[in-house]
Amino acid sequence: MSEKTIIAPSVLSADFSRLGEEVETVCRAGADWIHLDVMDGHFVPNITFGPPVIKAIRGRTDKVFDCHLMIAPADPFLGAFADAGCDIITVHAEATTHLDRSLQAIRDLGCKAGVSLNPSTPETALEYVLDRLDLILLMTVNPGFGGQAFIPSVVEKVRRVKSMIGSRPIHIEIDGGVTPETAPLVAAAGADVLVAGSAVFKGGSEEAYAKNIAAIRAASDGAMKKAA
Amino acid sequence: MSEKTIIAPSVLSADFSRLGEEVETVCRAGADWIHLDVMDGHFVPNITFGPPVIKAIRGRTDKVFDCHLMIAPADPFLGAFADAGCDIITVHAEATTHLDRSLQAIRDLGCKAGVSLNPSTPETALEYVLDRLDLILLMTVNPGFGGQAFIPSVVEKVRRVKSMIGSRPIHIEIDGGVTPETAPLVAAAGADVLVAGSAVFKGGSEEAYAKNIAAIRAASDGAMKKAA
Amino acid sequence: MSEKTIIAPSVLSADFSRLGEEVETVCRAGADWIHLDVMDGHFVPNITFGPPVIKAIRGRTDKVFDCHLMIAPADPFLGAFADAGCDIITVHAEATTHLDRSLQAIRDLGCKAGVSLNPSTPETALEYVLDRLDLILLMTVNPGFGGQAFIPSVVEKVRRVKSMIGSRPIHIEIDGGVTPETAPLVAAAGADVLVAGSAVFKGGSEEAYAKNIAAIRAASDGAMKKAA
Amino acid sequence: MSEKTIIAPSVLSADFSRLGEEVETVCRAGADWIHLDVMDGHFVPNITFGPPVIKAIRGRTDKVFDCHLMIAPADPFLGAFADAGCDIITVHAEATTHLDRSLQAIRDLGCKAGVSLNPSTPETALEYVLDRLDLILLMTVNPGFGGQAFIPSVVEKVRRVKSMIGSRPIHIEIDGGVTPETAPLVAAAGADVLVAGSAVFKGGSEEAYAKNIAAIRAASDGAMKKAA
Amino acid sequence: MSEKTIIAPSVLSADFSRLGEEVETVCRAGADWIHLDVMDGHFVPNITFGPPVIKAIRGRTDKVFDCHLMIAPADPFLGAFADAGCDIITVHAEATTHLDRSLQAIRDLGCKAGVSLNPSTPETALEYVLDRLDLILLMTVNPGFGGQAFIPSVVEKVRRVKSMIGSRPIHIEIDGGVTPETAPLVAAAGADVLVAGSAVFKGGSEEAYAKNIAAIRAASDGAMKKAA
Amino acid sequence: MSEKTIIAPSVLSADFSRLGEEVETVCRAGADWIHLDVMDGHFVPNITFGPPVIKAIRGRTDKVFDCHLMIAPADPFLGAFADAGCDIITVHAEATTHLDRSLQAIRDLGCKAGVSLNPSTPETALEYVLDRLDLILLMTVNPGFGGQAFIPSVVEKVRRVKSMIGSRPIHIEIDGGVTPETAPLVAAAGADVLVAGSAVFKGGSEEAYAKNIAAIRAASDGAMKKAA
Repeated sequence: MSEKTIIAPSVLSADFSRLGEEVETVCRAGADWIHLDVMDGHFVPNITFGPPVIKAIRGRTDKVFDCHLMIAPADPFLGAFADAGCDIITVHAEATTHLDRSLQAIRDLGCKAGVSLNPSTPETALEYVLDRLDLILLMTVNPGFGGQAFIPSVVEKVRRVKSMIGSRPIHIEIDGGVTPETAPLVAAAGADVLVAGSAVFKGGSEEAYAKNIAAIRAASDGAMKKAA
Repeated sequence: MSEKTIIAPSVLSADFSRLGEEVETVCRAGADWIHLDVMDGHFVPNITFGPPVIKAIRGRTDKVFDCHLMIAPADPFLGAFADAGCDIITVHAEATTHLDRSLQAIRDLGCKAGVSLNPSTPETALEYVLDRLDLILLMTVNPGFGGQAFIPSVVEKVRRVKSMIGSRPIHIEIDGGVTPETAPLVAAAGADVLVAGSAVFKGGSEEAYAKNIAAIRAASDGAMKKAA
Repeated sequence: MSEKTIIAPSVLSADFSRLGEEVETVCRAGADWIHLDVMDGHFVPNITFGPPVIKAIRGRTDKVFDCHLMIAPADPFLGAFADAGCDIITVHAEATTHLDRSLQAIRDLGCKAGVSLNPSTPETALEYVLDRLDLILLMTVNPGFGGQAFIPSVVEKVRRVKSMIGSRPIHIEIDGGVTPETAPLVAAAGADVLVAGSAVFKGGSEEAYAKNIAAIRAASDGAMKKAA
Repeated sequence: MSEKTIIAPSVLSADFSRLGEEVETVCRAGADWIHLDVMDGHFVPNITFGPPVIKAIRGRTDKVFDCHLMIAPADPFLGAFADAGCDIITVHAEATTHLDRSLQAIRDLGCKAGVSLNPSTPETALEYVLDRLDLILLMTVNPGFGGQAFIPSVVEKVRRVKSMIGSRPIHIEIDGGVTPETAPLVAAAGADVLVAGSAVFKGGSEEAYAKNIAAIRAASDGAMKKAA
Repeated sequence: MSEKTIIAPSVLSADFSRLGEEVETVCRAGADWIHLDVMDGHFVPNITFGPPVIKAIRGRTDKVFDCHLMIAPADPFLGAFADAGCDIITVHAEATTHLDRSLQAIRDLGCKAGVSLNPSTPETALEYVLDRLDLILLMTVNPGFGGQAFIPSVVEKVRRVKSMIGSRPIHIEIDGGVTPETAPLVAAAGADVLVAGSAVFKGGSEEAYAKNIAAIRAASDGAMKKAA
Repeated sequence: MSEKTIIAPSVLSADFSRLGEEVETVCRAGADWIHLDVMDGHFVPNITFGPPVIKAIRGRTDKVFDCHLMIAPADPFLGAFADAGCDIITVHAEATTHLDRSLQAIRDLGCKAGVSLNPSTPETALEYVLDRLDLILLMTVNPGFGGQAFIPSVVEKVRRVKSMIGSRPIHIEIDGGVTPETAPLVAAAGADVLVAGSAVFKGGSEEAYAKNIAAIRAASDGAMKKAA
């Protein structure tokens, strides 16, 4: 949807002992959004952080807080994440029985609404909620598990989702194994928001972050332009 | 078990945007242990933080990391919390079907093992695991809910647990509404570890923390001495 | 499937303090079927009523009792709903892992079998059970939540389901926000059974019910005829 | 606690097709409270009714609405039952992990708070929540299963609970198999509220209900007096 | 309850590839009962076997089939285990909410009813179901986990349970780490049925089994006699 | 994928009292693979057997052990089934939230990976995991329920899956009601592995098994040849 790639560094790869500073640094280094990976140990086999951590860093930047809920159920917690300062709240299609309702609830809270699909989930899950959506997050690794490689078969899903949304103003976001090498593949297929963790935070300094972000952005913007 | 009160500030009341610094500050201000309140949104209706946050602050102090798992199930996550650097891992009696086994597993990981009881849970739950225990955590509020007052009926439970453990080297820890006013009640009944959140972190400076800790400690040590 | 619209008032909008009388009245006022909204507080966040209530009103009319199970699991309760006098039993595709089996079980109990789809659920869920089905219930609001508006994107789903069932004698039923204004939309797309709650029971008298039913029926039958 | 037996007919044995009338009749016939058996098909293997049914009959009498929640979880539904007009809300100790909290929540809603124990559950479950309680409901059959006989071993539990509550103003209520034959057993042991279903509603007329209630009351009051 | 120890070899340590033969052999070698360890991967983290395996070996002996259900829920499966030929069916107190009911259901199926307690579960769980019980199974290891040692603190529980049952004809069975060394400890405390796995099946021949059984029996009977 | 039908007798129809012998016999009688139906009483309403039984028979043959996990969750048990000697491990698409991950985990254990679909599940569930798959198991009865007939509507699903996999070396396996009458239907549509239970084991002798297998094979191979 955007004409330029939106880079959304995942704080999961930042230094949690000085998270406010990390957020400020990565924003100065060119991050467009801050991606927040919430895991509850039930939808995925890991526990990361929840509303209290998000609230604590909200004051450090005005950038979009892009919250990815890898939790089930999600509905009882939507209010807490909105209160903590999230701008976009994304739930997993696999984690909710009443997806249309969850998306309405997110918008009723004044937030933008997203749906995320696991690598194996077909895009038919989205067909009847397109009018409720601001963002579709396609996982290119399995959420919540460590040490995985980018799954190339999802590129075709990006293409189909791009075609499915037509002219609707819906972002297509990619999360998992995003690097300057993989970014062009998904950008060419239609993705306009890229989540990156270690690919952004490696190096550990503002200069490194800026260089890392620039590298992903250049690779992605180039592919976007070619595709257009 | 200790002759002097152990003060364990809960990081849940610290500033999560600069948690490493907060931990260092509160340790300099007199904290004995660092208390880590892990919530998964299932055992309790709140999600706080998990292993990645703990790991990030582990290097900031050598003090005991006292980890309170308000999660269910707990068993699949014990290894991750040990790896993150926890010294004591406490599970809830209400959250595990095989309590004896969970405690063995914690000790097999090289950690000290604790059991926590909700305010309504009777101490009979502890009777057959005393030999597996290094710590008993008695909740004086309901875990995971905000804005609650210290529940005075638990003081009697502290007394009974103290008597039940006899000469075994088991800490009795109290969590919930601990202040200089309530600390003497539980200390006189047998508690030797006090968790405190806002009662420690209010004021927001090292001086404030030091003063807050000292106030709780003085009140508690005094009561301990009288009781002895 | 029917050439004329079947109107199925939902007792959820009737006066439960005199439900037998309400059922008799609405039947005299022109209701074709009685729609029974069963909710268990687990599949949906509301608890309404179960077999004892249905049994109590069964003797008041010979009309079809059309039972919509918004419960999970459903299988253990199918026998109790058949015994209570339900003629049609509809389960949610999202609420059962063994849908083909649940439908067989309903027919083995001597009832007609239906499947309901939440607004976000694609019709691919029905593809392999068409031969087991007497009715497909397409939700045009999210079941179990109050105060919602008719979801227009489901109209397209009605059309696709109509085409998918071909010449099979399967009813297409609509539930949620049905009024004289929305009825023609779904009737034109292929629906032949309309559930209506407050749109039928508003007014509180036999005359009002009759007028309400007639208004929906007229709007729907007109659209059906045009579409044919 | 009362000096005279409180008779609480369970509407589960009333005619649900004219429930408002049944409630009025049984109140005229001498009922003190109306007992409402809510089952969700999860805590117990039956689904009865929920807030909409209770709300519909609330206007028919000023008597106490005594609501027995045989549901798990209970917490998310407490507000709905209070809104429906329940005066007392009783949860099962076996159905909630945070019993102290559930009881606080009930009182915060302006209702009286009760705890119910299954026949096999020991009274130690109550020890630390006595100060939160207005009523203790001891089941003398297993809730939610049909066709059971009064379990005599619970009489001893009544006695122990009576002694445990001391001078606290807490009702002891009995539910299951209460008849003029069993009523004296529990009344002598300390029970002051008796739930009765078919033992009250058999006969089907105001005269029958009055006679039935009188018989239970006489048997119970007599035993109470002797015990005092 | 018995004056002589009942030895119940657990087939979990037998050779499952020729289970019928193993059962015949161990019966000839002196086994009194056949112990059947059913695990479902939910109550315990292992899956062993269910009704089809039990049914297949039922014809090989007339000895008591003593079935230990380490499954949750248990109620839906009781009929299948009775049909498969179990004589005693034991459920875990931790695995059922309606323990009194489960025990009634087992007896209604014509079987003897048992309750098992995990090592950490206090015997108060049994207090109100003693009249429904034919057997109490006290675990001396945590069920479903491998490689564990006999837990000595359970011996005190055996003693208390023995005293609690008084003159009722209820067996006390021990499972976990039973050997000629540990058998006397529990026999002296009141146990009369001993489950043994590898301690019986080691050696792999009828002679070995006979010797193994004899050793446990001798140690246990001696302790029983002394205690009497 | 194979040019000749692979016959995989299900041990669920063998005599479990002498399972090792049965496995040897059926292998001599012409079985290509041994099919292992694992049920946990949660994904399906039956409990059959788990790793200990499989391990015990592993030594009796070198044929492929084809393990069908009708369990949920499956992930925590994959290692145990690999250790027990399974060559192929098949999970149900309906039983796992992270299907791509489960399949990766199976291959990381050195096994071949399969996905099974219930009769009502559309093949879209497979679209994005084809590169992780060695086998697709299409159920032609509902797993875990007794006494069912072959469901003919699945034949069309076989056809679509065959077309979907293209030239990928993926087996299509059929389970449920396979006989010499139904085998040609699925073989013609593209299936190359047939599970059969009583259709193989009826007769109870090596000769019978050989004749049974030969009959299925002949019918299937003939249909395969015609289709090619």
